[in-house]
Amino acid sequence: MDSNSLALPDARDGLRYAIRAISLENISSLAKNGLGDPNIIPLWFGEGDRPAPAFIGEAMMRAVRAGEVFYTHQNGIPQLRAALSDYQTALGLRAIGPERITVTASGMNAMAMTVQMIAQAGDNIIVVDPVWPNLGGAAKVVGAQVRSVRMDLAADGWTLDLDKLTSAIDDRTRAVFFASPGNPTGAMIPMENQIAMLTLCRARGVWLIADEVYNRLVFGMDHGPTILDHADEEDRLVVMNSFSKSWAMTGWRLGWMVHPPSLGPTAAMMTQYQTSGVATFIQHAGVAAIREGEPFVASMRAYCEQGMAIVCEALEGYGRVRLGARPKAGMYAFFTVDGMRDSRAACLDILNRSRVGLAPGSFFGPGSDGFLRLCTCRSPDVLREAMTRLEEVLR
Amino acid sequence: MDSNSLALPDARDGLRYAIRAISLENISSLAKNGLGDPNIIPLWFGEGDRPAPAFIGEAMMRAVRAGEVFYTHQNGIPQLRAALSDYQTALGLRAIGPERITVTASGMNAMAMTVQMIAQAGDNIIVVDPVWPNLGGAAKVVGAQVRSVRMDLAADGWTLDLDKLTSAIDDRTRAVFFASPGNPTGAMIPMENQIAMLTLCRARGVWLIADEVYNRLVFGMDHGPTILDHADEEDRLVVMNSFSKSWAMTGWRLGWMVHPPSLGPTAAMMTQYQTSGVATFIQHAGVAAIREGEPFVASMRAYCEQGMAIVCEALEGYGRVRLGARPKAGMYAFFTVDGMRDSRAACLDILNRSRVGLAPGSFFGPGSDGFLRLCTCRSPDVLREAMTRLEEVLR
Repeated sequence: MDSNSLALPDARDGLRYAIRAISLENISSLAKNGLGDPNIIPLWFGEGDRPAPAFIGEAMMRAVRAGEVFYTHQNGIPQLRAALSDYQTALGLRAIGPERITVTASGMNAMAMTVQMIAQAGDNIIVVDPVWPNLGGAAKVVGAQVRSVRMDLAADGWTLDLDKLTSAIDDRTRAVFFASPGNPTGAMIPMENQIAMLTLCRARGVWLIADEVYNRLVFGMDHGPTILDHADEEDRLVVMNSFSKSWAMTGWRLGWMVHPPSLGPTAAMMTQYQTSGVATFIQHAGVAAIREGEPFVASMRAYCEQGMAIVCEALEGYGRVRLGARPKAGMYAFFTVDGMRDSRAACLDILNRSRVGLAPGSFFGPGSDGFLRLCTCRSPDVLREAMTRLEEVLR
Repeated sequence: MDSNSLALPDARDGLRYAIRAISLENISSLAKNGLGDPNIIPLWFGEGDRPAPAFIGEAMMRAVRAGEVFYTHQNGIPQLRAALSDYQTALGLRAIGPERITVTASGMNAMAMTVQMIAQAGDNIIVVDPVWPNLGGAAKVVGAQVRSVRMDLAADGWTLDLDKLTSAIDDRTRAVFFASPGNPTGAMIPMENQIAMLTLCRARGVWLIADEVYNRLVFGMDHGPTILDHADEEDRLVVMNSFSKSWAMTGWRLGWMVHPPSLGPTAAMMTQYQTSGVATFIQHAGVAAIREGEPFVASMRAYCEQGMAIVCEALEGYGRVRLGARPKAGMYAFFTVDGMRDSRAACLDILNRSRVGLAPGSFFGPGSDGFLRLCTCRSPDVLREAMTRLEEVLR
């Protein structure tokens, strides 16, 4: 706990105790030696092999040439906030005004700012996992405790036990975080459960933080449903999103959050003191992505679905692999391997033997150490080659 | 104090007490209504009217076309860390290895990460002012107290009283922050004073955070001296820097910090949980700026110096203005006006009457409310027009 640091002299390195206690273990540290090695098929990150479409880069370059290279609005440029307002409104049942949008330097940055606004040492944040660990990382940075409420894996997929969630909340709980569709599970939390979480959070004065990054990658649908449809605008709800996945803009570092209108000035202040905002020309790339990117988003959805079919068909043929119901969204297969206990050691072993990079389940919350995550957002040829290589070690 | 929030119910908006207590008052909020108004001469921000040279944008676009659009190293791409290592080594007396460089999403972001690594609620950070208020803002975000140690204005410029600094440090002091050359003062803190600060910080186990953003804009010199020349690599010293001023890249959101080698992994972790890094193509723009930007830096220095001469000559002719010694570095004139008490009200009045945007001294720490800041990084014609307009209200 962070508050212990009050009693601990910082003799070693002068850093906060809470900071020193945060593990650096993540996909980057695992991937470090293999980053950029052309002999490795990198299915460990949540990132595909397609760059963003050319029109997005061209929009950025037009903005640079037009002189969009100076300081700008801290909540984001009006054009992008308007585009995202239109986008969110079109995807949902309620109008989302631009005053509810803040542009961020990634989905991660939206999470970091949200956590910093609401939590501090002594508080706790509930994380519905298995889930991408970075909101938990941001919570640890401010000294807050991360409480895991794990979904259960049934024959038809992952389900959330609301009673478990309810009993995890106490007086120092500041937020409940969930992702739907999920990373790494691909699970969609039914809307009645999302509404139940919102109702619970309302009753307890707790924030609900929803990650909808994968909501355009729902197979067979234009988009998944959003909890925004069921929330009042001043509910303590932040929905965070990113250009990384649906527009293949991982390396562009652009995201946004939808927040209560009253949070806008505070989000501006937080932006001011954290990054002072996102490059205007990248925001113009974002405008192009939103305004002209729908055909590309559809093609990304088809690409991930095609990859998912190739991967699942192969995995289902390996005797030691337990995949369960095929994911209906997202870009990951998340599966167990009989006899495998230490997923990190298994990933290093697989990397050495098959030159395929996978992510260990241990990164996605307690209880997932028997799992491996594989990103399906790759070309069919590459995925078939990867599955051939993996067959040797996983069959 | 942040720790009070433990006792305060968050009935109003669910935000941390410390967050709610942070004033949103800054140049952006003052400038809000005038942002982009072509009738206003905007001398309020620390930003010139020149865009970055075209070769920097071209380097970025080449990187985009080459597919440098994916996730990358959290401390920065090896090419930029190497370029910055060479750059820092060439400017100083000691070699600065790439393991001491972390690329950040702005100078502000370097400050925010540094503060988060070392300070929390109950701690304090000493700020040598008048100075750009954003490090103090980042300190307030983590709930730390900001202690102002104000430099004194003498006939020959601003001087630091080391006794005042020494007596401000207590057991909860985690860092001393200073900028040299200063913003808004343009003052260069003599190296013997910087060394004394380092010695003091060493003795007390306190971090020294040095802002060297203006160190290439020292009139008549290639660069100012750096405290890195006098520090061991494991001293608790972070030197933060930015591409914003010397390379005219304010809107590109790119900075870096020089830190002890041992801090590298922690800086990577902090980057992971705050922004997950800077767009690779922007980092390639940074490589071009460092490797090919020296002629441009020299031209920026000349531009700021030329602007400073025009502004100072005019100000010295206004009966009510007290400028003191002309600044020898940077891009600001910082002056008092006889009879002016409330600098914010004065700025709004000047904006209305003369359509020139100035920044109020009150933003730069306690005791500066009688001052105004004017940015000199504008073309001679624009500055002459601004000074003509200002003469009416300031003479």
